Amino acid sequence: MVLTLEPTLSADAQESLVAQLRELRFKVTPVRTQRAAYLVALGPKDVDIRRIGALPGVLDVHQVSDDYQLVSRKWRVRPTVIDLGDDLRLGEGTLSVVAGPCSIESEAQMEAVMQHLVQSGVRLMRGGVFKPRSSPYSFRGLGLDGLRDFYRLARQYGLRIVTEVMQVSQVEEMLDYVDVFQVGARNTQNFNLLDALGQVDKPVLLKRGVSGTVEELLHSAEYIFSGGNEHIILCERGIRTFETASRNTLDLNAVPILKEKTHLPVFVDPSHGIGIREHVPPLALAAVMAGADGILYETAPVPERAASDGQQTLDFAESARLVEALQRTYLLRRQLAEDGLV
Amino acid sequence: MVLTLEPTLSADAQESLVAQLRELRFKVTPVRTQRAAYLVALGPKDVDIRRIGALPGVLDVHQVSDDYQLVSRKWRVRPTVIDLGDDLRLGEGTLSVVAGPCSIESEAQMEAVMQHLVQSGVRLMRGGVFKPRSSPYSFRGLGLDGLRDFYRLARQYGLRIVTEVMQVSQVEEMLDYVDVFQVGARNTQNFNLLDALGQVDKPVLLKRGVSGTVEELLHSAEYIFSGGNEHIILCERGIRTFETASRNTLDLNAVPILKEKTHLPVFVDPSHGIGIREHVPPLALAAVMAGADGILYETAPVPERAASDGQQTLDFAESARLVEALQRTYLLRRQLAEDGLV
Amino acid sequence: MVLTLEPTLSADAQESLVAQLRELRFKVTPVRTQRAAYLVALGPKDVDIRRIGALPGVLDVHQVSDDYQLVSRKWRVRPTVIDLGDDLRLGEGTLSVVAGPCSIESEAQMEAVMQHLVQSGVRLMRGGVFKPRSSPYSFRGLGLDGLRDFYRLARQYGLRIVTEVMQVSQVEEMLDYVDVFQVGARNTQNFNLLDALGQVDKPVLLKRGVSGTVEELLHSAEYIFSGGNEHIILCERGIRTFETASRNTLDLNAVPILKEKTHLPVFVDPSHGIGIREHVPPLALAAVMAGADGILYETAPVPERAASDGQQTLDFAESARLVEALQRTYLLRRQLAEDGLV
Amino acid sequence: MVLTLEPTLSADAQESLVAQLRELRFKVTPVRTQRAAYLVALGPKDVDIRRIGALPGVLDVHQVSDDYQLVSRKWRVRPTVIDLGDDLRLGEGTLSVVAGPCSIESEAQMEAVMQHLVQSGVRLMRGGVFKPRSSPYSFRGLGLDGLRDFYRLARQYGLRIVTEVMQVSQVEEMLDYVDVFQVGARNTQNFNLLDALGQVDKPVLLKRGVSGTVEELLHSAEYIFSGGNEHIILCERGIRTFETASRNTLDLNAVPILKEKTHLPVFVDPSHGIGIREHVPPLALAAVMAGADGILYETAPVPERAASDGQQTLDFAESARLVEALQRTYLLRRQLAEDGLV
Repeated sequence: MVLTLEPTLSADAQESLVAQLRELRFKVTPVRTQRAAYLVALGPKDVDIRRIGALPGVLDVHQVSDDYQLVSRKWRVRPTVIDLGDDLRLGEGTLSVVAGPCSIESEAQMEAVMQHLVQSGVRLMRGGVFKPRSSPYSFRGLGLDGLRDFYRLARQYGLRIVTEVMQVSQVEEMLDYVDVFQVGARNTQNFNLLDALGQVDKPVLLKRGVSGTVEELLHSAEYIFSGGNEHIILCERGIRTFETASRNTLDLNAVPILKEKTHLPVFVDPSHGIGIREHVPPLALAAVMAGADGILYETAPVPERAASDGQQTLDFAESARLVEALQRTYLLRRQLAEDGLV
Repeated sequence: MVLTLEPTLSADAQESLVAQLRELRFKVTPVRTQRAAYLVALGPKDVDIRRIGALPGVLDVHQVSDDYQLVSRKWRVRPTVIDLGDDLRLGEGTLSVVAGPCSIESEAQMEAVMQHLVQSGVRLMRGGVFKPRSSPYSFRGLGLDGLRDFYRLARQYGLRIVTEVMQVSQVEEMLDYVDVFQVGARNTQNFNLLDALGQVDKPVLLKRGVSGTVEELLHSAEYIFSGGNEHIILCERGIRTFETASRNTLDLNAVPILKEKTHLPVFVDPSHGIGIREHVPPLALAAVMAGADGILYETAPVPERAASDGQQTLDFAESARLVEALQRTYLLRRQLAEDGLV
Repeated sequence: MVLTLEPTLSADAQESLVAQLRELRFKVTPVRTQRAAYLVALGPKDVDIRRIGALPGVLDVHQVSDDYQLVSRKWRVRPTVIDLGDDLRLGEGTLSVVAGPCSIESEAQMEAVMQHLVQSGVRLMRGGVFKPRSSPYSFRGLGLDGLRDFYRLARQYGLRIVTEVMQVSQVEEMLDYVDVFQVGARNTQNFNLLDALGQVDKPVLLKRGVSGTVEELLHSAEYIFSGGNEHIILCERGIRTFETASRNTLDLNAVPILKEKTHLPVFVDPSHGIGIREHVPPLALAAVMAGADGILYETAPVPERAASDGQQTLDFAESARLVEALQRTYLLRRQLAEDGLV
Repeated sequence: MVLTLEPTLSADAQESLVAQLRELRFKVTPVRTQRAAYLVALGPKDVDIRRIGALPGVLDVHQVSDDYQLVSRKWRVRPTVIDLGDDLRLGEGTLSVVAGPCSIESEAQMEAVMQHLVQSGVRLMRGGVFKPRSSPYSFRGLGLDGLRDFYRLARQYGLRIVTEVMQVSQVEEMLDYVDVFQVGARNTQNFNLLDALGQVDKPVLLKRGVSGTVEELLHSAEYIFSGGNEHIILCERGIRTFETASRNTLDLNAVPILKEKTHLPVFVDPSHGIGIREHVPPLALAAVMAGADGILYETAPVPERAASDGQQTLDFAESARLVEALQRTYLLRRQLAEDGLV
């Protein structure tokens, strides 16, 4: 059960409300986000919800049959749209494109990508400075210094940046230099990191775990929301299966399933999802038709020379063509929706 | 190595050619299909291919580095298009739509579906009379009698039918009453069945195994082709993974990968691929953007009362909307291709 | 619900019994096996079972909450033991060892293996004459002629043979030359083949599907039992997962789970289960401690030169050591059971 | 390539050695652990290794063809044995038993378990105070206070403790109150945590990831070793597959494969591996025959009332029987090894 509280509710009044719910044998978690204050109350199913709704300070209340609560569409039907300012919104009603290299490598590389993105009308750039690598001997990113340069340059080009955070201590350090925190597929269930990201006011792009279920992804998002941050984007990026012809198996089933279960925006990363450069564009377009609110892909000046993930990275010509194809595909999806066909 | 033989080559001349290749330590498999005669020669890699090409009776010869040979695009670059007559072609350059119930249940059911398909402009109908079921106590289909009725009615409505064959002895019995044989996901590696289907002149729609790799699917197609039948359609229908939010995990990665590796048409079955009725349409459209040459889905008069698979079956209103959306999506894909964007 | 019928029940009396059950809205499947006659009745759960048990001709009756019925331990608590004569029994209370080459290749090969088995005290030999192969160009076995030789030689050496049947038409052809039919992992859901094996009086060793669940394996066994043959052995042989360090992932969890769910014997094939020769013995011993009733493994005179599966085949020295280790391990398991420790 | 350095080598001499290797185009990582100092040098394969071995300060040098280096058995053939003092050693040559509750809940619970363990001759106790939970609303453990109590009581009972660390900041906090750090299956690729654990002198029990490969597990161990801590135990605990009859699929194939590839001890956790209480013992015994150096399982006073994992937790009677069965099974394995049978 999720209770939205009246914005003017005093701390004392809230405490008294919590106490009443606990008397009714509910386990109560108070949540205060950028947008509002809520109580998540888990417990008896047989309580008359109108009685709860009539308690002083309660704006509205919803029973949620899912195990997760705040991220469920059973509670909040209207899609969450995240406003980054300057008319840049993420979520239903728009198709976001996030592009850039796997790893930030140098100023020259960043500027080349930024010029390409600006020319192509892409406003969000991805790029990692902390790189999770299977082997300790691989390139592990430029770190915080690289991030500061990345952020500074992005501002010059009018771009917003999405970049991966790997551990709790980085959240604070990175805070002033990111627009959107990315949680990678190996950290989807790093619960301490999710807790920490619940406490900051920057959007979080949360990737699905390498072998994470849709249900687990929603639970992980619930960590962030219940921690106090409701600006969350979910991202399908391929799961691990027996198939070895592709790097991962992009699970586009997850897109309409997630859109039904949650009000959060759903993005897709076809670069990791298939892992084969020439097949990234068709999968990106497929993701749009499956209902994705955004596409995240890798592009770099010379993919063959990238420090990581070169085999799944587009060059700028391919990237520019993809951006145009994405826009036309999204336009079709909107028209089909307007015509009542999807 | 695949050798295409001159159409006029005599049996004696072919035998002599085979003998020469065996002397060069090749293992030779002679293949005669509806279209042409070939030799598949496996063995030494260091033979000068021009020398082979110059042998009498050889029209052309290609080295094929894949383990499969006849289905490989390394040998035959031009896509295979299967002509069913009456201007009905399956394969690249068109988008085929195959729709119908999971199981054929009655004349009334069939006629209702047929009227809907004709109205919607769909020319191919699916429907099973032999149903593979996990439990021996489930409905196992109407059998051969049902097939005869199915075929007769389809002819009246001007429809072609696609229906599943489960065992060798059925191939002969069904032959006069099918337009396209379907091999189900549990029989993708039923090699005796594939052998038998290699010996008839009816197209075969070969579904990917529940846990079959792309590579295994191509090998299974090679069985049919090398048996003498080159009219094969491959069909992605979802694979088994750890995810339980959907019935299977539709692997759209397989579409561009297959299109690159083989000249055969590639269809997609989103009904089995996701197994959730309301999510079938977005996945069908996604499949088109991923590059599918055809879409196979389930529709029935009253899905809730279908003898099998009702939870993933569209009603006619949903089906009609999907057909229109598929056509518009395919049109966009063609335009993007013409504009050099995909 | 499973009803065991009185052995002396006439056909008329049985028909009348079936009619009464149908009146009670049960779907009834009559089953007659080597051992007894049964009725499987599916339908209403609220019928008083004592009333059914009191019907004339009913020896006993059990409600079975599983979807499968005849193979369930909820109906038959006592383990099924299959008697091959000459004091050779398969099932609980003994540890069966089945060893031999992947493929039967020649008389010399067979005789070498047979001598080794006799010396080691192994009484069951495996070996394939019909080989399911991913590629049509691979060696596909010696066929029926090879089987006749295999059977004749085995008789001379006092051995029983286990060999794979791949299609319905082979069942009849092979019947006089096999002691135990094997159904391979690609045919676990070849329902027509299971039906056909239900109609013969030879035991069937049914392998789990490459990606088959425990539940599906039990359903497939139900096909054979309900067809009329209750001499079935289940065999775990490794499933397909994301792990590539081994050929398959041997699922020893399946052993105690199957032993709990069914009265049928459970064997394990560690050769396919791990696919790495030097690691077959520890997995074989592990299978015994997990509760297996039998072990099936591959051995050949010169594994390196075997026509198939050489990389997972033991030589005779390794095989002899394994047989001794298996016996000592099984002895320990029995002692632990006697001492109430497992 | 791994170089073991002379213990007396000065910092200056080591630097000069590193410089020489870099001149030969090696990427060099200096490593100093509890036991020795090493250089990991990656790069050219064509350098004469004798030339490297002859450099001043080099005790020995080995080429390692694996991607991981320090954990590879190709470099260090002798198994790593970890000495906890008081004659308690973990690794080859002994069978370690680690038992205890999933979560530490109270002093009464801890003392009950401890008495049981002491009586059964078990010297290592597991128990979590930081619990990774899918949902933020689940019980998340008693935290640091609980750990201090756990450690204090364990000392009174003469037990060593194994407990999970979830994030970098806990490493320092927990250091004085743990005997062995456990890294859970969701943190196997939490590289920052692995880095941090490389910097402390306490053994680490590293669980395999839920969908982690054997190769990835070894790479993660390499993080810890190359960070400076070579006291690492690997632990197989079941992987995620399509099978839903068990919680996970215990992959005992991994045991002999890991024992071949690495010199580190290999433990098995059958409780998580199968997740069904009554089937934990047979899988534990199977793990011993597969070659495990230790078994980790869950036991609690009243499993039905445990705060987490009750369905896979043994009561004390079951646990006592298992300990005896484990010892007798391990004894057999040693005898078989002495007799040259495994």
